[in-house]
Formats: sequence, structure tokens, C-alpha cells
Amino acid sequence: VSVTAPNGWLAAGVAAGTKPSGALDLALFLSERPASVAGAFTTNLVVGAPIVVSKPRVAAGHARGCVVSAGIANVATGEAGIEDAVEMARIAAEACGVAEEEMLVSATGIIGRRIPREVVEPAIKDAAAQLSSAGGSLAAEAILTTDARPKTATRAIDVEGVRVTIGGMAKGAGMIAPRMELHATMLVFLTTDGGASPEALQRVLADHLDRTFNSISVDGCTSTSDTVLLFANGAAGVDVDDDPAFAAAVGDLMEELALAIVRDGEGASKILRVRVSGAQEEAHARAAAREVATSLLVRCAVAGGDPNWGRIAQAIGQTSGLVLDPAAIDVRVAGVPVASRGAPTGREADAAAAMRATDEVSIEIELHVGSATWEFVSSDLTPEYVTFNAEYTT
Amino acid sequence: VSVTAPNGWLAAGVAAGTKPSGALDLALFLSERPASVAGAFTTNLVVGAPIVVSKPRVAAGHARGCVVSAGIANVATGEAGIEDAVEMARIAAEACGVAEEEMLVSATGIIGRRIPREVVEPAIKDAAAQLSSAGGSLAAEAILTTDARPKTATRAIDVEGVRVTIGGMAKGAGMIAPRMELHATMLVFLTTDGGASPEALQRVLADHLDRTFNSISVDGCTSTSDTVLLFANGAAGVDVDDDPAFAAAVGDLMEELALAIVRDGEGASKILRVRVSGAQEEAHARAAAREVATSLLVRCAVAGGDPNWGRIAQAIGQTSGLVLDPAAIDVRVAGVPVASRGAPTGREADAAAAMRATDEVSIEIELHVGSATWEFVSSDLTPEYVTFNAEYTT
Repeated sequence: VSVTAPNGWLAAGVAAGTKPSGALDLALFLSERPASVAGAFTTNLVVGAPIVVSKPRVAAGHARGCVVSAGIANVATGEAGIEDAVEMARIAAEACGVAEEEMLVSATGIIGRRIPREVVEPAIKDAAAQLSSAGGSLAAEAILTTDARPKTATRAIDVEGVRVTIGGMAKGAGMIAPRMELHATMLVFLTTDGGASPEALQRVLADHLDRTFNSISVDGCTSTSDTVLLFANGAAGVDVDDDPAFAAAVGDLMEELALAIVRDGEGASKILRVRVSGAQEEAHARAAAREVATSLLVRCAVAGGDPNWGRIAQAIGQTSGLVLDPAAIDVRVAGVPVASRGAPTGREADAAAAMRATDEVSIEIELHVGSATWEFVSSDLTPEYVTFNAEYTT
Repeated sequence: VSVTAPNGWLAAGVAAGTKPSGALDLALFLSERPASVAGAFTTNLVVGAPIVVSKPRVAAGHARGCVVSAGIANVATGEAGIEDAVEMARIAAEACGVAEEEMLVSATGIIGRRIPREVVEPAIKDAAAQLSSAGGSLAAEAILTTDARPKTATRAIDVEGVRVTIGGMAKGAGMIAPRMELHATMLVFLTTDGGASPEALQRVLADHLDRTFNSISVDGCTSTSDTVLLFANGAAGVDVDDDPAFAAAVGDLMEELALAIVRDGEGASKILRVRVSGAQEEAHARAAAREVATSLLVRCAVAGGDPNWGRIAQAIGQTSGLVLDPAAIDVRVAGVPVASRGAPTGREADAAAAMRATDEVSIEIELHVGSATWEFVSSDLTPEYVTFNAEYTT
């Protein structure tokens, strides 16, 4: 399972000691042979030191593996933080016997705090010693912070009679250690034993990124550490460079992991799927869907089972740059029409009943000014989210 | 007090019956003589019917008064809602004996629901019969929705030996009727007995709007009904058109009311003042201050007394278009330096103690890339906010 599902991939997860709970907090994974890589990183202007170190290595297109730390994010730590990240990758590379520039480093956890080298460095060596083709599960566990459970997925396709496997692991945010405050960073690591150039991998990522990981939200806060990496080592003996089945399988796996991150979001009790259709441009549909899905008032209403058409209208209207005819909007909540042509239908009671009967509430908005659509997935906002994120004290 | 503090202004507040609690829900105020007016309205693309009706009347520059309903906002109600708003203003004008186009209409409350004419229209007539120069307090009470308390302010200045008075009332959002869900609309009504042209009033509003009402947030949701109106009837017998003392007094009063709205925000337990300095442009400082002040994670941290520099860095970095050197940022929380040159100072414990000792937490961010500054005021995010906004069910 996880990143070791494809051939030629090894992984390990160990407890370095950066989590007060003592849980696994350091993952390492490695390809037994040279591999291509493509990646996507946060657009936050403040980026973690591991991203500063890894980004140019990913851009070079070839990497053998990655060391991931999940107790402290190593962000906003100044020049010393960069040195810490370089050193972590160097020690991992040395322990794995690969070139320093082919080892990536990634981290999640508390930001604004330095990572203790004396704790992490022996753990990296331990992890390297424990690398195995069965280590994907432990690695998937070791990258978690406040997540309730590991998130992994695999796909297998047939390419010219050869079986190609894709494996992945992700972390989002949950409530696994309620006295720790850990930033809701998204980390996703995907591996395959198909063969592909870095450029092909980058195209596959780019094709699916916006509709999957870029269309989810737990709390509207863009992390400083978000990272998606896709590695291909060719161990299956077949190239998947321009194979549409490969691209589709990666996209499908990305969607599964994105949804798993929202489901495991801090304090989430219900999934919220906001679908905007009939927009003049795709960017408009996307912006409006995001606005509705991240609105505090809409998310509170979903928690309360309230099909509040007024709050949905408010959020749509707040969308910057949207071409809108307020008198044309149709809205369904949990499948029940609550607004037609911009006015209430009077069916709030039916919609409220439908909302309470499901743990995946849909809001479907038809703008009637074009044909572009977008779906954005978030969750309800609960008192548990607030309590959890207020409880951590330094 | 309130809008009847200046000479020549009358007001009333009555209970029409649009609030389940039976509280006052309809305010009317009127100048005894012709008056100039200027106003500012929401930028939400979905606007309330009262704004559709009032906006062109305000643009004409002359109005005698306004009828304000606070149970139902009359937004997202289609063409019928516009007719309801026109009719409310017509009845108010008739009852007051003024021209229809000089009576404004405003509303706040539940959106997506029609206002019941049969309930509101007799109440308008009652209010007109009760207009008095002592009615400002009742009017200030009648415009509230979930507010905990009325928000009024007055200023008096001396212009060429003549006393000129400015009065104002505002509503924000509070917890006055916990089973009602009412949209956090901001309504502000300012009156003066100074004489001024509509253009002069508009200039005064424009000069102060961005630094006061446009720099506060309770929940980041821009209402469909936000309205600020400034009336001048000249009853004091002196013109204040280009009087800097008048402009300063209005600005000061706007600041007081803006802060009062945040203090009375739904579920707020602490004020959060975010000051960004050293930005390259004013728009950058403003955007960054807004981003930090409205971040869910920062607001939860303030509720928990946690001087979380990492969450502040994340929010700064999320600011669209910001020119930023992450290694240059200095941050103080409640007066205590928590980050210097982009790295933690290790003084979290001192900052946490300082946060807990105050009910007005400051976050001061120095970017060191320019000299522009902005301050944005919000509040902490508490479980009470979420519970309150989830509890309303149709």
C-alpha cells in the first residue's frame, strides 16, 4: 500500500521524538533505481525551509526519495532553518547512498519553531536502516500531524500488457493529538513504477491539481508547506509518458486523497460540496464555489442543518470579479430547490430535512449566465474546530 | 443622543412584529427641514432591495429621513422585494408629509425572505406619529438585530462661534436573541445640524470610510445590506462644507462606532487590532492586515491566548499581491516581540501572559520594505460564534 505499492520503492516510518505524544514523526522513502519527479508547492509567500531546499531539486527533474518530518514544520525559522533542512537531506542521502541533490526534504507541524537536529538526525539514520518494500504503511502514519487516520490510495493499470502501479499517501489535518497545535499543511507523495519523463509527470500533475487539491479547504488558510510530489522509477519496465490511462489513474487517485483530506479535516462533521454551474468563465465558477464553500456563515449553517439561501446569496455576491445576474440564480441544497430565479422557493423545511439525513451536503448553484462549472469541497464549521485550534498554548 | 442629538432631527422606534422576540424592529428618523445626504453601500453583487431603492435617492443628494426595518433584510427576494421596499418608503414619506423621493429605506435581518407588508406598514404610520426630538434612543434600539447593545455616539464642535452637533447610531451583530439568525449587516446613520452640500458630505465620508468601517470584520462576510448615511440639515445656522474640524469630528465618530460594532460582534470575547507597517504600498498594508485579522487560525489563537507567530506568518504570506521579504518581518503580539527578522524570538511565554492580561490584543507587524501602514480591527473566534450561527434552523 501507500508509496511502496509500486515496484522498486522502499519506505520507513520512525519516532524521532518531535511529537510530544511520542508517535511516529519521521518518514523516509526511496526508489531503488533512478527516478523522475515532478512537484507542486504552496503559493504562500512565506514558504517552509524544506520547500526552499527541495524546489530546485524537483525542478531538476530527478530525485530518488524524500525525508519527511511531521513534528515541526521548519517554517519562519530564518537562515538557520534552511541549514537544518539542507542537513536533513544530506544525512538522508548519505544514509541511503544516493547523491545529495537527489534527496528531497519535506516537513509539517508547528511553524515558527526550529527543528532539533540532535533529535532528527539519528532518526533519519534509523529510518534508512529500516527501509523496506512493506514500509509504506508506517511512512503514511509518520507524516500525520492532527489527522485522525492515515490516508493512502493505490491504482493499477495495464499498459501494453504490463501492470503499472501508482501509490500515494497524504496528510491533512485532524485531531489525533488534541493538545498539540499543528498547522493544517497538506503533504501528498505519489509514486509509480511506470517510466516517465519529469515533463510528462509535471503535465499530469498540472492537469489534475486545480480540480483536486486546489479545490478543497478545511479552514481557508493556505499553508506555508503544501507539497505534492509525483515520482516515477520505471521499475515496471514500460513507459507511461503519454498514456491517457496513466494520467486518468493519477487524477483519480489525487481526487480520492483530496476528499480524504477534507473528510479528516479538523472538527469536520459533514462534507460540503459546492458546485457552481452556468458561469461565464471557469475562473468565475471556481471563485464563486470557493467563496461559498469557505464562508463562515454557510459552513455554520451546514453544521446546523440550515438551508440558508440568504447566506449562500451573500457569499456568491462577495465573489470578486464574478459576472452575476442576481435575479437569475437557482440554488439547490441537498438536492432540494431553495431559490429559483433569485427568490426563495419556500422549501426550506424540505431542504433542512434532506441536509440532516446526509453527511455529505451539496449546494448546487446555477448562475444562468454561461456554461462554465466548478466544484469545491469543504466541510461544516463546528465548535470543535474552534476549541481545538484555541487550546494549544505555548 | 443618537441621530436626534443635532437640532431639527426627530426619530422613533416601534415594534412592528417582524422579530419573534417582539422587540423594537422599526426605526424612523426625519429632518424637520430639507437636508443634504451622502452615503456608502455594500459592494456585494447581491444587494438588498432597500439599497436598490435608496441608492439613486442618495445620489440625488437630498433626503429628509429614512425608515429602517430590522427583522427581515428584504434581500434576494426578487422583484416583489423591490416593490415592498418602494412601498415602505412611500408610506413613510406620506405619513411624514415629505416627497416620496426624499424618504430612504434601509433594512437588516434575515435575508432570502419577504418582508410582510401588512405587519410593517401600520408600524411605519405608528412611528411617524411618535416622531420626537427625544426619539434617538428608541431608534438606535430598533435597528438592532443580534447586537447585545445599542451603539450611539455624538460630537459637538464650534464653527465660527456656533455649536454644530453630529449624532450617529449603528448596528453590527451580537447575541441579543439567540434563536434568531440575523445577518451581520452593518447599518450606520449619521446626522448633523451643520449645513453642507451633498458633495462635501460625500468627501467627508470617502475620507474616513476605508480607515474605519471598511477596516473592521466580525466574520469576513460582506453583507448585502451594508449602508452608511450622513445627513446635514443646517439647523445650526452655519455651513461646515470645508471645515476641517467637522470632517475630523465625523471621522472620529465613525471610528468610535466602527470599534463599537466589533466589540459587539457575535461571540467576540477579545478585540484584535492588527497593525501592519513598513509596507511598500498602502494597499499592501491594508490587504495584509485584513488577511491576518480575518484568519481563522489567528482568531482561534487569540481566543486561546496563544501568540502563534507561525499562524501570523502564514496569514501574511497568503496576502495576494504583497511585496514581502520573509526574512525581514518583525512581529509583536500584545506588545511583546515574538519574531525578529523572520525568526522566532523565543518569547512566547511572555507574549501569552500579556495576551491573557488584556481584552484588546494587538498584533504589530513591521515588514521593513517601505513606509505604508494600515490598521484592521476584528475579534477572536470563539465556539460561541459557531454555535450561535449553527443554531438557527428554518
